[in-house]
Amino acid sequence: MQSPGPTGPCTEALIAAGVARVVVGIEDPDPQVAGSGIARLRSAGIQVDVGVADEEVTQQLRPYLHHRRTGRPWVVLKLAATINGRVAAPDGSSQWITGPEVRADVHRLRGESDAVLVGAGTVRADDPSLTVRDWPPPELRIDPSGVRDPKRVVLGSAPTGAKVHPCLEFDGEIPDLLDQLGVESVVQLMVEGGPRVAHAFHHSRSVNEYVVYIAPALFAGGDAAGLFAGSGAMSIEGVWRGRFEEVVTLGGDLRVMMLPGGAVDSEG
Amino acid sequence: MQSPGPTGPCTEALIAAGVARVVVGIEDPDPQVAGSGIARLRSAGIQVDVGVADEEVTQQLRPYLHHRRTGRPWVVLKLAATINGRVAAPDGSSQWITGPEVRADVHRLRGESDAVLVGAGTVRADDPSLTVRDWPPPELRIDPSGVRDPKRVVLGSAPTGAKVHPCLEFDGEIPDLLDQLGVESVVQLMVEGGPRVAHAFHHSRSVNEYVVYIAPALFAGGDAAGLFAGSGAMSIEGVWRGRFEEVVTLGGDLRVMMLPGGAVDSEG
Repeated sequence: MQSPGPTGPCTEALIAAGVARVVVGIEDPDPQVAGSGIARLRSAGIQVDVGVADEEVTQQLRPYLHHRRTGRPWVVLKLAATINGRVAAPDGSSQWITGPEVRADVHRLRGESDAVLVGAGTVRADDPSLTVRDWPPPELRIDPSGVRDPKRVVLGSAPTGAKVHPCLEFDGEIPDLLDQLGVESVVQLMVEGGPRVAHAFHHSRSVNEYVVYIAPALFAGGDAAGLFAGSGAMSIEGVWRGRFEEVVTLGGDLRVMMLPGGAVDSEG
Repeated sequence: MQSPGPTGPCTEALIAAGVARVVVGIEDPDPQVAGSGIARLRSAGIQVDVGVADEEVTQQLRPYLHHRRTGRPWVVLKLAATINGRVAAPDGSSQWITGPEVRADVHRLRGESDAVLVGAGTVRADDPSLTVRDWPPPELRIDPSGVRDPKRVVLGSAPTGAKVHPCLEFDGEIPDLLDQLGVESVVQLMVEGGPRVAHAFHHSRSVNEYVVYIAPALFAGGDAAGLFAGSGAMSIEGVWRGRFEEVVTLGGDLRVMMLPGGAVDSEG
């Protein structure tokens, strides 16, 4: 989601146009707005119905609503794995285990985010640029001059000369980072990994939405843990439960969207 | 798939009934049949069109076709895991990580199979009965007296008194087991685990169809391998690729059907 630009209130325009009835999905929780426009419309004699299709509107706007209510960005954790939960091989040889449709979708997700984060290890291993390619498609561009790349954030330090520069290099606790990004109007933060960064965000309960790309593949490497062998001392006590929100096929792969199972946060 | 019972050929009945045209999906590859009925119909002056909806028919009949062509059962490997590829905890505490809809679907799969296989370790740990409950539903039962339980197979030895008795206890190589089961008219074998048995079947390329139940959950146990941390010396060389055939939601869980990517076997 793009952060909203500075727009004038439409209240006076609606009154001037002689509109008889206004339908509102949900009230804007922004304390600078908070129902004042609705009150102004009603005082001008306009019928205002609040709560129409409010569930759909809430879902569509949830990064914005989350940001307004918590002061922090909506965190989307992107993961890509085989069906048995294996990520790209550490030597980087498997980074393209998913297909071109997934790569295009990752660029869409970047393009809809205000900031993209990776760990310093990923920067050293892959030297990603984290820019947006081919999104949005030309027909969806409001500004035909092109694409606005998201702010780039590295957890740790990026080597001089890395393609990720210019970027914010952050050393510290994840909640503090989220506070800082929220102040900088980052409404949606996309976390791209690697695995240690993913674990840190998950473990600190900072993830609002998991986007998992699954390839129809199995890693059967020397590591015996996982789907095909015993897996140590785990117990159901260590299980975190969420809920699937959407599953779609992207070429030969799957995209699974998963949300935390309980109340996501104050809007839950 | 149930193995076909002894049925008389319908060729003579069709001729006697004066049928003018017969539509055939695919020819039966059984060497005892092999097109002789089609030839008999044509010699009686009946128009016979072969190959109508042959893809759909082939898909529906593939366990039978596989058995007729290879002499071995169609092997369905059942897996259940979290989104990051974790199976039930070794202490058994997480066996119900998926919901009741998945449990019902597992009984459907058992009921459609001629034999069900588990490892001796699973028998010792869980003492499963491997019987079919509530499948098929009464309205789908041809024989109203009830359900035919699949033959039970244990890889290794089952302790005296285990609920899995009577069963076939097999010690040996998987291809030899499949040959034996094929001779015993097992058209579809369901492999239920545990993880070592699953790995053995997968590693010997004996699996024809993977049915993976995925819960919207993450194991974040002490074991750092898998989706959320580095995973040893794996490389893309160790990747096996398949293709997704179908994804459906079952309650809050997913069922993903996956087939080997290349030619499955001679019918491929």
